[in-house]
Amino acid sequence: MPTVPNSTETTSIGPLPDSVLVPFAPGSVWLAGAGPGDPGLLTLLALQGLRQADVIVHDALVGERILELASKTARLEFAGKRGGRPSAHQDDITSRLIELAKEGHRVLRLKGGDPFVFGRGGEEAQALAAEGIPFRIVPGLTAGIAGLAYAGIPATHRSANQAVILATGHSLGGGPDWRALAATGAPLILYMAWKALPAIAAELMAGGLAPDTPVGVVTEATTPNQKTLVTSLSACVADLAASGLEPPAIIVIGEVVRLRPVLDWLPHHG
Amino acid sequence: MPTVPNSTETTSIGPLPDSVLVPFAPGSVWLAGAGPGDPGLLTLLALQGLRQADVIVHDALVGERILELASKTARLEFAGKRGGRPSAHQDDITSRLIELAKEGHRVLRLKGGDPFVFGRGGEEAQALAAEGIPFRIVPGLTAGIAGLAYAGIPATHRSANQAVILATGHSLGGGPDWRALAATGAPLILYMAWKALPAIAAELMAGGLAPDTPVGVVTEATTPNQKTLVTSLSACVADLAASGLEPPAIIVIGEVVRLRPVLDWLPHHG
Repeated sequence: MPTVPNSTETTSIGPLPDSVLVPFAPGSVWLAGAGPGDPGLLTLLALQGLRQADVIVHDALVGERILELASKTARLEFAGKRGGRPSAHQDDITSRLIELAKEGHRVLRLKGGDPFVFGRGGEEAQALAAEGIPFRIVPGLTAGIAGLAYAGIPATHRSANQAVILATGHSLGGGPDWRALAATGAPLILYMAWKALPAIAAELMAGGLAPDTPVGVVTEATTPNQKTLVTSLSACVADLAASGLEPPAIIVIGEVVRLRPVLDWLPHHG
Repeated sequence: MPTVPNSTETTSIGPLPDSVLVPFAPGSVWLAGAGPGDPGLLTLLALQGLRQADVIVHDALVGERILELASKTARLEFAGKRGGRPSAHQDDITSRLIELAKEGHRVLRLKGGDPFVFGRGGEEAQALAAEGIPFRIVPGLTAGIAGLAYAGIPATHRSANQAVILATGHSLGGGPDWRALAATGAPLILYMAWKALPAIAAELMAGGLAPDTPVGVVTEATTPNQKTLVTSLSACVADLAASGLEPPAIIVIGEVVRLRPVLDWLPHHG
C-alpha cells in the first residue's frame, strides 16, 4: 500500500498558472458567469477577471464570497434586481457597460450562473458589438446543472434520459409550450419558475406528465445555506408553500430526482 | 478620464485563494469535469484536484493543456475511449476508481465537459456510494453550452427561446423522441450526434422543424483548433460531409444560430 499523507487539511496549491490567462485589454468588456454560488465553481478566467478588472458590474445573484476575490483596487458596481427595490433596467446596464469601456476601463460584467443561459448576456453582447467595443464571453456554470449536482441530482443519467430541457418560468410573453415540453418525457430544469409553478405544474400534467413525477426544489444551491425539497408534481405547489423555502430556486421535474438518495454527496463533505 | 494601464500583456494574478479550497481526503474520489477544452474554463476546484490528486484517471476528451496543470507527482491513468481502439469498459473504470480509493489515494476522475451531462458520472458515483467510498462531484462546463458560447451562439436569447434542449445522439436504445423534441420549438443542442445526424435530421423535419432551420456545428470547441460550420437542417448532412470537419462535434439546431455573425467574439481575441 502506498504511503499517503494523513492530513485532510486544506493547504495552498500555489499560484494560478499563467499559461491559462488571456489578455484583458483596457476598453474591453468580459461578460462572465460567476456560477451558482460556490467560489470553487468559478472558472479560472472568471477569477482572472475579478483580479484584473478596473470595474466590476455585478448582479444580485453574485455572492459576497465571490466578490471578496476581486482586486482591492477594483470598483464594484451593483446592477442587479432585487424584489421590492427599483430594478436596474437592461438598457441602463448596457449603456453603463459601453460608457465604462469607452472610458478605457477593463470592465467585468459578472452575472450569476452563465451569461448565455437565461442570463441576457446575448443582449449585452449585441449592444457592445454595435458600439464596436471588444468583448469576451466567459461561460459560467449554470445553476440548473451545477446547482442540482450539489443536491445529488444529475441532469442526465444513462438509465433515465437521453435529453434534458432547461426552461425559464419567467417570461414576458407566453412562455414555453409546457405541454409540448411534457410530451418529450425529458426531465425539465426550471429557472425563475417559483411564482408560475401552479400554472406550470397544471400544464405539465395536462400535457401527460404523471402526477407522481418526482420534483426537486433547490435553493441557494452550492452555498452553505443550500436547501432541497423533494416532492411530486401534484404535491409540489402545496409542499413548497409549506416548506419555509424562499425563492429563487432551481426546480427539476423528472425521474433523475430519484437518484438523489444515493448521490447526495454534499452532507459527507460539509 | 481615469488613468488606465497601457499594457495589454497577460501577467500573473497571484495565488489561487485558499478560501475557496476544500479538503481532498485520502481514500476519496472527486468526479470532476474539465470543461470543453480551454484550460481557462476549468473551475478552481478542478484545478485544486489536478494539483492535489495522487492519481488522475482521465478521458480522451481531456486535453494535454489541462493535464499539464497536474502536480508533477500525480500519476496519470488514461481511461478514455477512442475510435478504432479497444475501449475502457465502464465497469473496469469504476472498479479501478474503487481500487485506487481503497488503497488510500486521492483520486481525481477527470472527464471532458461535465460529469452529469452525458458523462456517466452518475453511474460512477453510484458504484462509489455502494462501496462506501466518499466522493465529491465537481461540475464542469459542458461543451454544449460553453463550447457554443465560444462560437458566438448563446444557448438562450430572450427574443429567441425560453427553453433549450440538450440531447445525445449516441444511445444504446432508441434514443430520444426526436419528433416530440422538434414539436417544442426549442433549440436542440446535440452531443455525439455526428453519425446519427442523417436519421436525426429526417426525424426532426418529420416532426415539424422547417428545412431552413439554421444549424451550427462546432468541433474542438474552445481550443485553438475550434472550427464552426453554419448550415441548415435540410443541408447539414451534405454540408458536413463536404466540410472536412471531423467528429466529435457539438451540433446546435435552432434560431439562436442566427446570432453568431454579431456575437462571434473569438476572432477578435485570438
